[in-house]
Amino acid sequence: MKTQPEFVPSGGITSPGGFLAGAVSAGIKYAPPRLDLGILLAEEDCRAAAVFTTNRIKAAPVLLNQRRLQGGRARAVVMNSGYANSCTGEPGMADAVAMAEIAAKHLKLVPEAVLVASTGVIGVRLPMERIGPAIPRVRPSREGGHDLARAIMTTDTVPKEVAVRSDGFTIGGMAKGSGMIHPNLATMLAFLTTDANVGADFLKKALRKAVDVSFNMVSIDGDNSTNDMVLIMASGQAGGSEITAGSRRGAAFQAALNAACIYMAREIARDGEGATKLIEVTVTGAGSLADARRVSRTVVGSALVKAAVYGSDPNWGRVVAAAGRSGAALAAEGLELSIGGVCLVRGGCPHPFDKGQVVRLLDGREVTITLNLNTGRAGATAWGCDLSPEYVTINSDYTT
Amino acid sequence: MKTQPEFVPSGGITSPGGFLAGAVSAGIKYAPPRLDLGILLAEEDCRAAAVFTTNRIKAAPVLLNQRRLQGGRARAVVMNSGYANSCTGEPGMADAVAMAEIAAKHLKLVPEAVLVASTGVIGVRLPMERIGPAIPRVRPSREGGHDLARAIMTTDTVPKEVAVRSDGFTIGGMAKGSGMIHPNLATMLAFLTTDANVGADFLKKALRKAVDVSFNMVSIDGDNSTNDMVLIMASGQAGGSEITAGSRRGAAFQAALNAACIYMAREIARDGEGATKLIEVTVTGAGSLADARRVSRTVVGSALVKAAVYGSDPNWGRVVAAAGRSGAALAAEGLELSIGGVCLVRGGCPHPFDKGQVVRLLDGREVTITLNLNTGRAGATAWGCDLSPEYVTINSDYTT
Repeated sequence: MKTQPEFVPSGGITSPGGFLAGAVSAGIKYAPPRLDLGILLAEEDCRAAAVFTTNRIKAAPVLLNQRRLQGGRARAVVMNSGYANSCTGEPGMADAVAMAEIAAKHLKLVPEAVLVASTGVIGVRLPMERIGPAIPRVRPSREGGHDLARAIMTTDTVPKEVAVRSDGFTIGGMAKGSGMIHPNLATMLAFLTTDANVGADFLKKALRKAVDVSFNMVSIDGDNSTNDMVLIMASGQAGGSEITAGSRRGAAFQAALNAACIYMAREIARDGEGATKLIEVTVTGAGSLADARRVSRTVVGSALVKAAVYGSDPNWGRVVAAAGRSGAALAAEGLELSIGGVCLVRGGCPHPFDKGQVVRLLDGREVTITLNLNTGRAGATAWGCDLSPEYVTINSDYTT
Repeated sequence: MKTQPEFVPSGGITSPGGFLAGAVSAGIKYAPPRLDLGILLAEEDCRAAAVFTTNRIKAAPVLLNQRRLQGGRARAVVMNSGYANSCTGEPGMADAVAMAEIAAKHLKLVPEAVLVASTGVIGVRLPMERIGPAIPRVRPSREGGHDLARAIMTTDTVPKEVAVRSDGFTIGGMAKGSGMIHPNLATMLAFLTTDANVGADFLKKALRKAVDVSFNMVSIDGDNSTNDMVLIMASGQAGGSEITAGSRRGAAFQAALNAACIYMAREIARDGEGATKLIEVTVTGAGSLADARRVSRTVVGSALVKAAVYGSDPNWGRVVAAAGRSGAALAAEGLELSIGGVCLVRGGCPHPFDKGQVVRLLDGREVTITLNLNTGRAGATAWGCDLSPEYVTINSDYTT
């Protein structure tokens, strides 16, 4: 048995034992045959845990799931794209409850075992007259994972799927873009499944840890949504004794979960609206983990840094200025900065570099920026994308 | 005598009694005859106070001025555009000290009475071989204010000047843009002068208060610079007894200072890089002033809100989502949102509105967004600009 996570080619949400998925075209907002409604179904009752948006304005599905996940168990998720069911008041909550009820009846489950996820335009009621009749047409199967990954896309240009194997278990996942807002919403949704026999408590803690080093380190445009949600369901079908925190198997599970989440987080960043490049910012030598995260997120989220990367401009001053305003403890004298491994700043002062070489590195599809604060030993990595004129076009073009 | 501040047409930094200014073209970075070097001179020793960038990376002029202003007095400021003298280490500090020394010799002052301000590219040494000989060519005069306002411009498209009169005194000001970064820096500089007889302590407190409701409420792109500085010098030439806090004349001074600062802050927002519209976001009914500021700044700084305003898209969901992630206490149910006075959201739910009318309002050169949180009585206003494809072009076009 290996403890290093290994990626499964063409894997996805139904790769782990015990999970089925399916999707149909309900014509919710996008014209058929585009898939826009689907179900993730566990063959048996599952342990489940989720991390939700910290936005004070929470969409109806988020509020419903928070209640339903208090027992740490779930059986299915019914999901749609097109409309987010956010800022829709009590009627919106009734729609979310109705979606779950119709799905429960179709799947022969109790409604409380069904979760709901929606992504799309804010402030518009769900077209229940189209969603209701379409739910019973969804036929979850072992092969349906790829369809479901497509059904949750909005402005995403490609589906994001992953599966990793480690230590006798598999983790599968699918996600949709963060800060992808067209015409007026932002949602990052990620669903993970596993056949690992993980206890509910550890599952929750492991998910929180994995989200902290992956999805929480992605910044597309600084806007976080009313619908963001990362959910994991564990069937336990891989067998063996329960995996707990602090054990060797617990560490293997955490490592695999981190790998799956980081993979999806990078794919989300790479597919940011209008993005032409993935930006990876690694901060080392920070005084604390919080500082390392703060600096890496601030740099990767800086509009000026993003525009410079778009233009392949080695404007290191913008990186330094963003680090400086992040609130982290640092001093100009200590800074060391590289782009693609080439040192541009040492001891806080310009270091001679071959501009042509750095421009060529910035021309690549992945740009890595490394910043050593030299104030301690903590590090963190954040992901984002460049800022192109296309981003503005996408986000200002809305037919009213 | 009036206590309502009154704007002086074509006024500027030399409108108050006791101040001279002048500028020359030194060819620092821009080709002559563009003005890029200048001096603000008080005829006699002045009370002075300043507010500096909170960025941990502070440019040499900022560090020098912080030291020199400890006594609350100053006589002159020598300033340049083109290069920011930031991230230039000890040699950069020596250049700032040298600039002040050369100016002091020219003006027959002690070097400690001279402050320095620089704006431009980060990480490049000042061309002292061009700056040094140019300083003695500057001839400060009563008429030189407009030239000096031009000399500190970088990507600004227009100079920003103001003068207000109130209760027997005058306040003059000039500023350059915030988040105007071309090719790789961001600087907001503002200089104010007054002939009011204001004590050093009150001057400092009044400036801090005025900056909090003006420059600190401007967001162009979220990046704050290593060089930001707002400086006020008070000559006392208007005479009368010293103006102190808590008095009727103190209130008149504060009101006039706020008016001058808010005017310049709005002009900076209006002239943001690539901007086509000024956005004013007013939050009312917040639980605290901090919350009101947080929400208004987050909304006006949201890339998605900015892009929607550029496209005249009444995407109120983006405003609500930005408010929700601001960290302020609020509930969806309480929200009331208007654009240009037209209500779009009431009780957190969509309120029917005439889309054509709102699109026409969004097509204007000034867009006002009002958000009532209905959780308390505090309010705040923030200013910004829309996000256009031109912003990205400006900030990615750098000839390396």
